[in-house]
This record gives sequence, structure tokens and C-alpha cells, in this order.
Amino acid sequence: MSRILLTEPLTAAAFSPFGDVLDASGSPDRLINQGLCGRFHDRAKLDFGPTESGGRAGLSIFLATPRSLPYRLDLIERHPDGSQAFIPMTTQPFLVVVASSSEARPRAFLTDGAQGINLHRGTWHGVLTPLQAPGLFAVIDRIGDSPNLEEHPITPPWLVRNPS
Amino acid sequence: MSRILLTEPLTAAAFSPFGDVLDASGSPDRLINQGLCGRFHDRAKLDFGPTESGGRAGLSIFLATPRSLPYRLDLIERHPDGSQAFIPMTTQPFLVVVASSSEARPRAFLTDGAQGINLHRGTWHGVLTPLQAPGLFAVIDRIGDSPNLEEHPITPPWLVRNPS
Repeated sequence: MSRILLTEPLTAAAFSPFGDVLDASGSPDRLINQGLCGRFHDRAKLDFGPTESGGRAGLSIFLATPRSLPYRLDLIERHPDGSQAFIPMTTQPFLVVVASSSEARPRAFLTDGAQGINLHRGTWHGVLTPLQAPGLFAVIDRIGDSPNLEEHPITPPWLVRNPS
Repeated sequence: MSRILLTEPLTAAAFSPFGDVLDASGSPDRLINQGLCGRFHDRAKLDFGPTESGGRAGLSIFLATPRSLPYRLDLIERHPDGSQAFIPMTTQPFLVVVASSSEARPRAFLTDGAQGINLHRGTWHGVLTPLQAPGLFAVIDRIGDSPNLEEHPITPPWLVRNPS
């Protein structure tokens, strides 16, 4: 048995309880390079947690296997010690599942192909789920020695699909 | 009058005096998410400079006007107080110009469409030069109050073009 979770478009307003949408919507905060580049400035609430355990900002590359819809969601996780930003290195939409608590009904967002996300520290989320190959992302998150992962199985699982 | 600068493919070895190539080459450092995601861990030497002037890591989005080759290079710049990473949010190659000093002969690298770069703190470089629309990038660099930009005009300019 599984329950149905419908996808919804990713918007900054809908995503604000969970994190930041990283895109070039609206007007740039400043123009640089002789007017040839718009800078949408400081768009993510980055948090790399406690520094005592060697915590610092890191940049890694993730290469993830594409999934397809309907997608079976049976696990969520969170990183108690830091934020985690995902920047797609392609123009392909990906699936972003988040939840306000481990027991809450999750929400399933679809990016529009020109959006990254930054999950705020401690936000429950599904694992990285590209929907097409290559699932190539840059990830900006905490690097450090503290255990920075909590996982929570979801029973019964959700079946994530697009609205018909 | 201008001088000719030929492009070359971006490789980690050739780029190492200037910064880091951010890609999924080689084997992942670890597999996560039940084996469905390779993590190429901690690939950038990030440096956000002095913290006294409010310096910290920031994530911004840049939307730059595409250029074309041959490209006239008449200015390089550097950021003395921090590194600067550029993550393309498309699969389109972009041009990366760097130089070992303001007077040195620059080098012009072309990415392969699946590479970002991280310029080490203080590296002389050309402005962001996508070659196709949309020139959409995520940028991870220092946010702070210190003046963090030096510019240097290049006279005579270089004309950057592909080898024939």
C-alpha cells in the first residue's frame, strides 16, 4: 500500500519554510562587468554549523542515478549541523521532497530547469532525485567530523506523481 | 592591433596553478543514497578571507550576456580576499581566462559542458564569459565589506579564438 503525493511547481514562497530557491527571477541586485552580468546577490541562507568539530564550507560534485515518476518515497533525512545547497549543472527539472517534520505530510516540488535549492539546516528532505541523465549537481554543504545525518523511514511509503 | 590567444581544453592539471576544476571525473570518493549517488568530495579550495570585515561564504546567481569567439580580452581582474567558484547551470561550454600575474600571458580555457571552476583567492581572471544563452551560473564567493576587486586593463588586447 502506498499513499499518493502530487508534485507542485517550485516557487520561493511555497519553499520558504524549507529553504531557498536559487534562480535569476526578478531584477538583479546589481549589474557588473560593464552591464553584461546581473548579480542576484546572496540568495542562500548558508549555515555550516559548529566549527569546533572542524566544520567548514565545502563544495562537492554529486552524480546521481535518474529516477522516474511515479517515485516511491520511503525515506527522508536531515542534516542537523548545516545547510545543503544543490545546484543542477543541467537544465533538467529535478524532484525536491521536503517535510516540516519527520511525521508531517511531505511536499514534492518540481524545479523548472533553471532553479537550484538550498535546504536550511535541519530541514527534512528526500534524497537527491534527478529525473533525467546526467544527474550532475554541485553541492555546497558542511564538511566536518560531527555525525550530520539523521534518516527516517516512511511507512507506508508515498507514491510521488504529477497531477493528472 | 591585437594579439592572438588560442583556447585550450580545460583540464585539472593545466588549471591547477589557478584553481580547481569541478566535475565528476574519476571515481567518486564515496557512494551515498543506497549506491544511487556518487559524491566527489570536497573538490574546491574555498577561502572566504578575513572575517574581521564581516567576510563569509555567500551563494549568488549570475546571469551573463553570451559572448562569441573571437573574443576581445582587454581586462583582467582579481579578488584579493577570497576564492570564487562558478557553477554553470547549463551544459554549455564557457570560456575561462586566467593569468599567473597581471603582466603574464593569459591562458584561455574552454570547459567541456560538465565542468565548473573555482578560482583560488587572488587569481587573475577574465570576467564571466558564457558562449551561449542563457549564461546562468551559481557563484560561491566571499561576501563582506572589504574592497575585494582589482582590475587591470590589458594593452594591447588579446583576441581569443579557437585553434584552426
